[in-house]
Amino acid sequence: MASPLISYSEAAEQVHLFILALAEESATPAHSASSEIVPLTAAAGRVLAAPIRADRDQPPFPRSTRDGFACRAAEANSHQLLFRAGQVRAGETASGSLGTGEVWEIMTGAPVPDGADAVFMVEHVDKNPGGDKNSDAGQNHDFVRLAATRTIQPGENIVPRAAEARTGDLLIPPGTRLGAAQIALAAQCGYHELTVAPQPRVAILSTGDELVPVESVPGPSQIRNSNTPMLAALVAAAGGIPVVLPAVPDQEDALDAALFHALDADLLLVSGGISAGRFDLVEDALTRMGARFFFGGVAIQPGKPVAFGQLPRLGQTPLPFFALPGNPISGAVTFHLFAAPLLAALGDDTALQPRFALAHLAGNWNGKPGLTRFLPAHCDFDPAPEVRLIPWQGSGDLAAFARSNCLLVIPAEAQELPEGSPIQILLT
Amino acid sequence: MASPLISYSEAAEQVHLFILALAEESATPAHSASSEIVPLTAAAGRVLAAPIRADRDQPPFPRSTRDGFACRAAEANSHQLLFRAGQVRAGETASGSLGTGEVWEIMTGAPVPDGADAVFMVEHVDKNPGGDKNSDAGQNHDFVRLAATRTIQPGENIVPRAAEARTGDLLIPPGTRLGAAQIALAAQCGYHELTVAPQPRVAILSTGDELVPVESVPGPSQIRNSNTPMLAALVAAAGGIPVVLPAVPDQEDALDAALFHALDADLLLVSGGISAGRFDLVEDALTRMGARFFFGGVAIQPGKPVAFGQLPRLGQTPLPFFALPGNPISGAVTFHLFAAPLLAALGDDTALQPRFALAHLAGNWNGKPGLTRFLPAHCDFDPAPEVRLIPWQGSGDLAAFARSNCLLVIPAEAQELPEGSPIQILLT
Repeated sequence: MASPLISYSEAAEQVHLFILALAEESATPAHSASSEIVPLTAAAGRVLAAPIRADRDQPPFPRSTRDGFACRAAEANSHQLLFRAGQVRAGETASGSLGTGEVWEIMTGAPVPDGADAVFMVEHVDKNPGGDKNSDAGQNHDFVRLAATRTIQPGENIVPRAAEARTGDLLIPPGTRLGAAQIALAAQCGYHELTVAPQPRVAILSTGDELVPVESVPGPSQIRNSNTPMLAALVAAAGGIPVVLPAVPDQEDALDAALFHALDADLLLVSGGISAGRFDLVEDALTRMGARFFFGGVAIQPGKPVAFGQLPRLGQTPLPFFALPGNPISGAVTFHLFAAPLLAALGDDTALQPRFALAHLAGNWNGKPGLTRFLPAHCDFDPAPEVRLIPWQGSGDLAAFARSNCLLVIPAEAQELPEGSPIQILLT
Repeated sequence: MASPLISYSEAAEQVHLFILALAEESATPAHSASSEIVPLTAAAGRVLAAPIRADRDQPPFPRSTRDGFACRAAEANSHQLLFRAGQVRAGETASGSLGTGEVWEIMTGAPVPDGADAVFMVEHVDKNPGGDKNSDAGQNHDFVRLAATRTIQPGENIVPRAAEARTGDLLIPPGTRLGAAQIALAAQCGYHELTVAPQPRVAILSTGDELVPVESVPGPSQIRNSNTPMLAALVAAAGGIPVVLPAVPDQEDALDAALFHALDADLLLVSGGISAGRFDLVEDALTRMGARFFFGGVAIQPGKPVAFGQLPRLGQTPLPFFALPGNPISGAVTFHLFAAPLLAALGDDTALQPRFALAHLAGNWNGKPGLTRFLPAHCDFDPAPEVRLIPWQGSGDLAAFARSNCLLVIPAEAQELPEGSPIQILLT
């Protein structure tokens, strides 16, 4: 491909600009008409399409965060004996309010009675309030007092009503990917089903004369098509629906026909056929379909010959595509860096970023500057993250890739990385 | 609960010891008899139960990693004109071997012809090999030569046969969680279906008088049960099958009956009812069932009153359980720290660790030492990880938790953390 190489950050910016344009488009009413309703229990991993709002104040009452005694802090701090006037458990409402010189025994999660301004913990009760050596713990008595070594502030161990949210507050905006925390919050607000965005349909097209299906016995110069199942797994993990097309040989007619069949997808991933070779026909085929290319090569290793563009479609928005390198590690790396965020955005989650974190480098690295590298590595995450490069034979080495659990990021300008230094990893 | 607090690392070690015992047990033949066979396309996220081996050498032939010219490096480095004797594409076998003074045009992924010891890239061909100013690029000529500015090493751009794997090599051991890389490697080796471990069945039992179902309108002192759907989502994300039991009130009989129903699960998660209060009946109910407790409180925030143990079962191995705190953030934190690794191990993946990574701290923190803290935080992962605490009203504040995407780890001894310092986060 004749396209000049651009830097990793320039390429990421191109994808980001495309996502920003999608975000504007997804705000239109026509767009939101396509949403789906799913049970709360099936919503994990989906993207919210309608806001979650508080159906009442949260907490709905001043909530005790401890087991202990609802009190007036000033009285408790005087360490006087306080009369145990009542009891309120989670799920109950106090049958009265707190009088002078009183406490109410209270459980975690229960509503604090009117008149109380703090809760002292049961562990902080004076164990021997009457001075009687034979008495048991204070909670068996009619009177309790705060232990002499303790004081309590007004408000302590109480979450005021509506401190977390007020009725009607927007708690989860549309476009949020739903995880366990969001599902719990939706449940708290009474949503037993959720309106979610449709999952993008992602056409996967592997190309190459050398490919045979997984079920086949390859000839001496053939290999099984491993990219299609790999990309299908990546698409599904990123929240898309893989639409697997049969692999096509390096023939113009076959490529043209396959691309035509992909036109009703939301995103197209073509694998292979986009290097510098004479039989890398994918760019030509995309060009024949009228493709607009945003980039056609990125200064990264692996994954340099990755292309991003869109194909015109009659009466529809253009189809975005990535032409991914045919070497499997190159394909996976470019998927994570570029395709995954765009895929998420096509499903209305415009906030997904490649997840870069830091870990301590085990061993060291030195090499030539010029390319941003994303190399197969293994991170020991516990008790502190330590990452080590996995020896590999290059971007076709699936055996090495399968031993990795992240990618180690080497900046374009780096010539050596010292042992122990905090270094970026790309979480996969 | 009267149990003494143990440190986070002591608690993690208890779980780890239990997992080591499980790992021994899972090596028995009786255990592996329960495995399942699934199509390769449905294997993502499952745990491999039978080894993946190379069905032939990888690569099966010396593989060119570039589009270019297979050559003898010594001849290429002399910068003589070399005769283009043939061509080999991916999927083809060279029709002959390389003679003296010859090159073969070769494509990425194609087998290197006998006699060649290197491949020089098409981009490194002398563009004007005849010295003719009007000629086009070298690849249209019968002769090519390596550009004068380039040299090539023997072996360059060739992966030797079997460099990645030899026939019969163990490529993926049983117990490996299958992701896209492992699926690609299995495909390469001809596995269109895979033998996987059964997913552990995880009983989820929320307790508390205050709980009403998600579909209900809670009374003034009631709340909807958000822990059950949250834990179900966490269990599913960790590879388990959630077995949701109806929530039970704080009544002995109801608890006993519910625990009895949970006995045929592989793991039990009880939520709520295990703090210091008089109506926290879960510990007593577990004790009535003959529970052995490994720990009953950990010096962490949130999540301190978490218990880990096992229940005896007639004719079966004991049922491991976690009694998780009822506050939802406490429940989620303790799930990630303790329950997720054990759940994975029950599904034969004994390598899962809590994923701690590093990020730069935005803002600063100061507080009392003594507890290892796991606080809701938001990490901006791109272009470099930067994490910020989310203001919260304590471990019941689901609205805050739903704005988080990780947990910030504050070591037990820390009293302040300065802005910008690399700090551990727990990836969720």
